[in-house]
Amino acid sequence: MHASSEDSARELTAGGIGEVALIRRLAARLRDPGEGVVGIGDDTAVVPGPPGEEWLLTSDALLEGVHFLPDAEPERIGHKAVARNLSDIAAMGGVPGYGLINLVAPLDIPVARLERIYDGAAAAAERYGLALIGGDTTCGGSLAIHVFLTGAVPAGTACLRSGAKPGDRIWVTGALGGSLAGRHLSFEPRVPEGQWIRAGGWATAMIDLSDGVATDLRHVMDASGTGARLDAERIPISDAARTARDRRTPLEHALEDGEDYELLLTVPRNLAADFADAWQSAFSLPCTEIGEILCAGSGLCIRGADGTDRAPGTGGYEHFRV
Amino acid sequence: MHASSEDSARELTAGGIGEVALIRRLAARLRDPGEGVVGIGDDTAVVPGPPGEEWLLTSDALLEGVHFLPDAEPERIGHKAVARNLSDIAAMGGVPGYGLINLVAPLDIPVARLERIYDGAAAAAERYGLALIGGDTTCGGSLAIHVFLTGAVPAGTACLRSGAKPGDRIWVTGALGGSLAGRHLSFEPRVPEGQWIRAGGWATAMIDLSDGVATDLRHVMDASGTGARLDAERIPISDAARTARDRRTPLEHALEDGEDYELLLTVPRNLAADFADAWQSAFSLPCTEIGEILCAGSGLCIRGADGTDRAPGTGGYEHFRV
Repeated sequence: MHASSEDSARELTAGGIGEVALIRRLAARLRDPGEGVVGIGDDTAVVPGPPGEEWLLTSDALLEGVHFLPDAEPERIGHKAVARNLSDIAAMGGVPGYGLINLVAPLDIPVARLERIYDGAAAAAERYGLALIGGDTTCGGSLAIHVFLTGAVPAGTACLRSGAKPGDRIWVTGALGGSLAGRHLSFEPRVPEGQWIRAGGWATAMIDLSDGVATDLRHVMDASGTGARLDAERIPISDAARTARDRRTPLEHALEDGEDYELLLTVPRNLAADFADAWQSAFSLPCTEIGEILCAGSGLCIRGADGTDRAPGTGGYEHFRV
Repeated sequence: MHASSEDSARELTAGGIGEVALIRRLAARLRDPGEGVVGIGDDTAVVPGPPGEEWLLTSDALLEGVHFLPDAEPERIGHKAVARNLSDIAAMGGVPGYGLINLVAPLDIPVARLERIYDGAAAAAERYGLALIGGDTTCGGSLAIHVFLTGAVPAGTACLRSGAKPGDRIWVTGALGGSLAGRHLSFEPRVPEGQWIRAGGWATAMIDLSDGVATDLRHVMDASGTGARLDAERIPISDAARTARDRRTPLEHALEDGEDYELLLTVPRNLAADFADAWQSAFSLPCTEIGEILCAGSGLCIRGADGTDRAPGTGGYEHFRV
């Protein structure tokens, strides 16, 4: 083997370092956008808008073979493409604004399939008050749908990942795990719930669950500079996670499966009872207290039924990690 | 052959109907965004912004094998990804605002290559006052860079495609054709020129040349409901188009080649002389009068050196057409 081949074999690859490290390295190449802008770190950027308002900007890619299989119902593909972006807006407590769709499609794809995808996207947009107003269409190797959304919040009220404080209670909407069994194509983004949480000032931090609660909670911990404890017995486990027939337990599915698109928020301890009451009056969707924010350096631990704490597995979904 | 196979063989495909028809069909699935919003039709959407201001939203995809070859210099790939979106903002006379990058990359891609792509994107952004503030990173089959940009204009001043009137003179910046020889990776978007044109109120319509002047002028004609005549002898032909060694003439290259990313604008006849003087005082870049807007039903014709008009070839670049 030549020296140059050895060098090339040792060269760092995207798959070798994983998505989190890759994003950190790529973000370092970009200039700090300056004061008043929340940029890379949250899934959604916050920028100055009209007086008294801030705008949210977010984008996500939906790729055939990665985020959906070729035989997925086209309307559901379009729904998912829009809904996962809406979930990012929901996690900030935002009101959906405008959307662009970048479509990449192979030459031999039936027009009827693309039309059905757009029907699904249009229905999701309409349901949540989003106006799809443009985009780009390009010939390419395999089907991809990139969606770019704007949203709005009253200035200074966007729910970020960075505000959690030790003692805050951790809450999560819905039930977790097993999304790949089907829900990942049909979930409803928690847009009204997110706005209600933001308007009520309940959350010190909020995030939507795209990579599994264990991974996404770590994003909140990293941004807030805290630790956290999850109570295993309180985690709401979905039916799909309970009935999955594999070697992983329902709890592992609930902690580690991606694409739940539920909201995780942290609520100050002294507001927790009021929050629970207010939520129950407002929504039929469950919202469950599942743990507590701890001080910095505590890491993430899972408290079992016997009261002992253990470190969680490392199975949270991360793009690029092979 | 079974009947179902015959049906399938007759099924319309994206490549079969071409990009223009595909966009029309897909746009028809989306709801009209309502008053105050310029949506699908222009490359860039215009939405209400802060008082006295409108925001521009645009997105474009850059795909390996379609928009650049695997051996392209990485910094130039990043430059092009940002610059072609900036060109869309420039065509509206907009001031660049914020940008998101959706990166799709194969697992085995060297991190160093991605970092160099981001360096090129960051340099282009900084040169034109654009803040790159987020995006998404996903594992996928082949390298793709989707860029979403915002921009801003004083309310009511965005230069659209739809305002051209019979008698308006057609002007174009720079020199045309042969971009694939290299310029498509290194062009500078006409951002200051576009803002100057908008601020001076010179243009009744404007567009950036991405698909070849013959094709892009038709977009202006369609949106404005007019015909147009191009004067063959006035078309500024690039050195690359003059020296291309193939069966097409330099003029054909200048009329039909894509990716010039120059601005084409229409100027009222009575302002044409003032515009020429003002441009020369402001820029060293040439701006050339190349024809005239005609009344509806005239179609597009090319006037030759002998004064006779002919229909142009149909070689303008269109994605999807095979």
